[in-house]
Amino acid sequence: MSNTNVLIIGGSAAGLVAAATAKSNHPDKDVTIIRKEEKVMIPCGIPYIFGTVETSDKNILPDGGLIKLGVNIKVDEVINIDKKNKVCKTKGGEEIGYEKLVIATGSTPYVPKWLEGASLENVFSIPKKKIYLDELQQKLQGINKIITIGAGFIGVEMSDELNKNGKDITVVEILPHILGLSFDEELAIEAEECLTSRGVKLKTGVGVERILGSEKVTGVLLSNGETLEADAVILSMGYRPNIKLAEETGLAINELGFIKADQYRRTGHPDIFAAGDCSEKIDFATGKLSGAMLASIACAEARVAGMNLYSLSTVKAFRGTIGIYSTDIGGTGFGAAGLTEAQAKKEGFDVVSGSFTGIDRHPGHLEDTHKQMVKLIASKDNGIILGGQVIGGKSTGELTNVLGFIIQNNMTINDLLVAQIGTQPMLTASPAGYPLIKAAESTAKKLKK
Amino acid sequence: MSNTNVLIIGGSAAGLVAAATAKSNHPDKDVTIIRKEEKVMIPCGIPYIFGTVETSDKNILPDGGLIKLGVNIKVDEVINIDKKNKVCKTKGGEEIGYEKLVIATGSTPYVPKWLEGASLENVFSIPKKKIYLDELQQKLQGINKIITIGAGFIGVEMSDELNKNGKDITVVEILPHILGLSFDEELAIEAEECLTSRGVKLKTGVGVERILGSEKVTGVLLSNGETLEADAVILSMGYRPNIKLAEETGLAINELGFIKADQYRRTGHPDIFAAGDCSEKIDFATGKLSGAMLASIACAEARVAGMNLYSLSTVKAFRGTIGIYSTDIGGTGFGAAGLTEAQAKKEGFDVVSGSFTGIDRHPGHLEDTHKQMVKLIASKDNGIILGGQVIGGKSTGELTNVLGFIIQNNMTINDLLVAQIGTQPMLTASPAGYPLIKAAESTAKKLKK
Ligand SMILES: Cc1cc2nc3c(=O)[nH]c(=O)nc-3n(C[C@H](O)[C@H](O)[C@H](O)COP(=O)(O)OP(=O)(O)OC[C@H]3O[C@@H](n4cnc5c(N)ncnc54)[C@H](O)[C@@H]3O)c2cc1C
Ligand SMILES: Cc1cc2nc3c(=O)[nH]c(=O)nc-3n(C[C@H](O)[C@H](O)[C@H](O)COP(=O)(O)OP(=O)(O)OC[C@H]3O[C@@H](n4cnc5c(N)ncnc54)[C@H](O)[C@@H]3O)c2cc1C
Repeated sequence: MSNTNVLIIGGSAAGLVAAATAKSNHPDKDVTIIRKEEKVMIPCGIPYIFGTVETSDKNILPDGGLIKLGVNIKVDEVINIDKKNKVCKTKGGEEIGYEKLVIATGSTPYVPKWLEGASLENVFSIPKKKIYLDELQQKLQGINKIITIGAGFIGVEMSDELNKNGKDITVVEILPHILGLSFDEELAIEAEECLTSRGVKLKTGVGVERILGSEKVTGVLLSNGETLEADAVILSMGYRPNIKLAEETGLAINELGFIKADQYRRTGHPDIFAAGDCSEKIDFATGKLSGAMLASIACAEARVAGMNLYSLSTVKAFRGTIGIYSTDIGGTGFGAAGLTEAQAKKEGFDVVSGSFTGIDRHPGHLEDTHKQMVKLIASKDNGIILGGQVIGGKSTGELTNVLGFIIQNNMTINDLLVAQIGTQPMLTASPAGYPLIKAAESTAKKLKK
Repeated sequence: MSNTNVLIIGGSAAGLVAAATAKSNHPDKDVTIIRKEEKVMIPCGIPYIFGTVETSDKNILPDGGLIKLGVNIKVDEVINIDKKNKVCKTKGGEEIGYEKLVIATGSTPYVPKWLEGASLENVFSIPKKKIYLDELQQKLQGINKIITIGAGFIGVEMSDELNKNGKDITVVEILPHILGLSFDEELAIEAEECLTSRGVKLKTGVGVERILGSEKVTGVLLSNGETLEADAVILSMGYRPNIKLAEETGLAINELGFIKADQYRRTGHPDIFAAGDCSEKIDFATGKLSGAMLASIACAEARVAGMNLYSLSTVKAFRGTIGIYSTDIGGTGFGAAGLTEAQAKKEGFDVVSGSFTGIDRHPGHLEDTHKQMVKLIASKDNGIILGGQVIGGKSTGELTNVLGFIIQNNMTINDLLVAQIGTQPMLTASPAGYPLIKAAESTAKKLKK
């Protein structure tokens, strides 16, 4: 039996950051990562393997930083946690004693049990495993007609990249619009226009009944009775937290199936923390359980876990999780932070929203100028900003982060009306027509009424 | 004599936004802009006339929005404010009565009195006047060797654009580094490397003694005795607020020469507001008078003025002005918000700083990936973030705005350690190596000591 001070199960976004943070905050402690993969994929980069970056070898999470910090890396699989004796058993037959344990086991693709035909040949999901993805890429080489089921951002990015690679792609989505969980309708429609203008075909507002074929997949039967032919199907219907280990050792699991963890990422057991896709999230705005799974959230949680292992160091941590994310469809960025207008209404908020469309550089005669649109959603009673969405160019990701900071600081529309920004012709919208502030003006008018 | 409800003197950044905000918040009021220029330049776009956009005709602030809102535009010059009778007299012989007056007379280039040779032929400054700029552009056509005096962002942008246009440019700066008021040394040095690698020559740490020539300029004598030859000289030594009108009518002027104005932009006189480059600013961090002149500040102040003309509507406004700005040197963005480390120390803050260099997309194999560096400056006693600086690619402007929101919300390093961000391969740095958060980690270590 070997011993380590801090043992981290999982070596992806959460595991990496938990280890780096633990080691750099507690340099005298021995920190060990144990993970299943020899080479870990940069999870968010996976879609680009199939188009832009061409190979999974260019999408590997480097170990160099961890090794330099002095973190031990073991490639193995934990099969049991003995939380009483503080020992983990591995598939490789090792026993590793720990002082503090961080569970960062992540998530795996969700393949619904009811979905007939899901195990046919050439039906794929998108796990974060290099070996699987390499095989998938290999198999897709000879194949032209592909159907993606599910148009969340992963389905959309995968489809766009495969389309870029010359494939004939159709995306099937049961919601009325693609990216429907992150964007309000008017923005989602623009995302659809972007995607279809690039050649991706869409079938929205219709579910999948079953996958057709006897050995190999031959097509998909939709719930409206329509049949689509396909040589391959990619399932992109969400991910489920990996909680088996935690469950078996008796840690509490919440109703959505995540490992329960408080704002410092402590599970019910004092020496066990959980971070990333496998762990509980509470929504910032509603206080309800949230199912958000993002690498940025995973890293933030892992950082909190790593800092607070031995004593509470950050003092205050998450009030709750804000979904902040962006994507790029052929040079047009789409970003969202917090609640959409539809979600906010569904949650019972009385909201107003306002939006403004301008351009992301000024004057408009500059080359490379891109339309920029910002939408804000605020509580009618107090003007507090609950969410925002962006369409724009290359600065969309950071403008979405501006929205994220606005939300996490509980800023109001009034605060934005008097907010300070910086502008420059080559890098931002103009100060007189900065869409974020103009959207606040438009929202303010509705607040007054 | 004619009458208007709201009269705005000045039609550039501040005047435009004051008018638009006044009219859209008080649609029943008659709003009039009076300005000297037939066609107003987009002020921040001026450098690009001399390179990228090629002509001032592509850099005109459009009147369409104002006209659509129903704002009256008069091209004339106010020569007197009779604040007792609430009447302005114009050069064109008009008398205009007002209920509320907004002074947005802006600023003009500073040409030091002691600078001998400043009125020689082919010595120019950069006023925001189309006619002057067109003539300047015309005159520079036959000229090759140009010296820019002053390497603030305007001098740097002008020089870079003229260099792009094939001119032989040398920039002379008395401070040890270019952009020395906005960036700490280590970032300023990188800006210098960018600029010189593009062909602009630099002479830093040396002042100008006088400008040489009898009729036309022939060169510049530096304070170290060196002579530089030149066919033209561009003075970029700062701007001074236009306060003559305000002063003559008896409004208070502060020690830095700006029209006094409170956080709602009210001058001492209840019906007269002042906004933009001509008006007083109080520094956010120090509470001292500030000399910052930026279009983004002008627009923010003008928005506050426009909203609060008839009753205080925004409730809380500026605690103080934060300088937030960015610039682009050949595709590399440089951004700064709040105090530099050097300024903070000079002001008496006990500070720590930390920085991190990563990349602005992930994985690094993506084309177009740019280095991204963030530096944070925080108070040692409480971790409150006083300033930040960025070097990066196309998202630099918005990342600088992220810093601006962090500062205006009094966020601490601890807040950033647990902050939430959104990341996406094509649009941002990776969540594990997001330079803003990593810079906070690096600063946190020093706070602990
Ligand atoms: C295609 C795709 C694109 C995405 N794009 C984005 C994006 O642009 N932005 C964004 O924010 N998010 C994105 N995400 C989501 C993001 O990838 C996840 O939120 C993130 O991977 C979660 O990290 P994690 O470390 O919690 O879990 P995972 O990445 O799932 O990693 C889990 C780790 O645990 C290990 N493990 C599990 N069980 C064991 C065990 N018993 N023993 C040892 N090791 C074990 C695994 O080997 C793995 O290393 C994307 C996801 C996908 C699939
Ligand atoms: C080359 C250059 C580049 C710049 N780049 C940036 C940048 O990238 N980002 C940034 O934030 N800032 C930038 N600035 C600063 C920015 O341009 C100023 O802060 C901004 O112009 C201030 O706006 P203003 O309306 O207060 O004043 P001004 O732009 O100076 O306008 C004053 C107006 O008042 C009018 N006026 C004056 N007196 C009278 C009178 N008596 N009667 C009638 N009208 C009168 C003038 O005609 C004019 O319309 C730049 C400035 C320059 C010169």
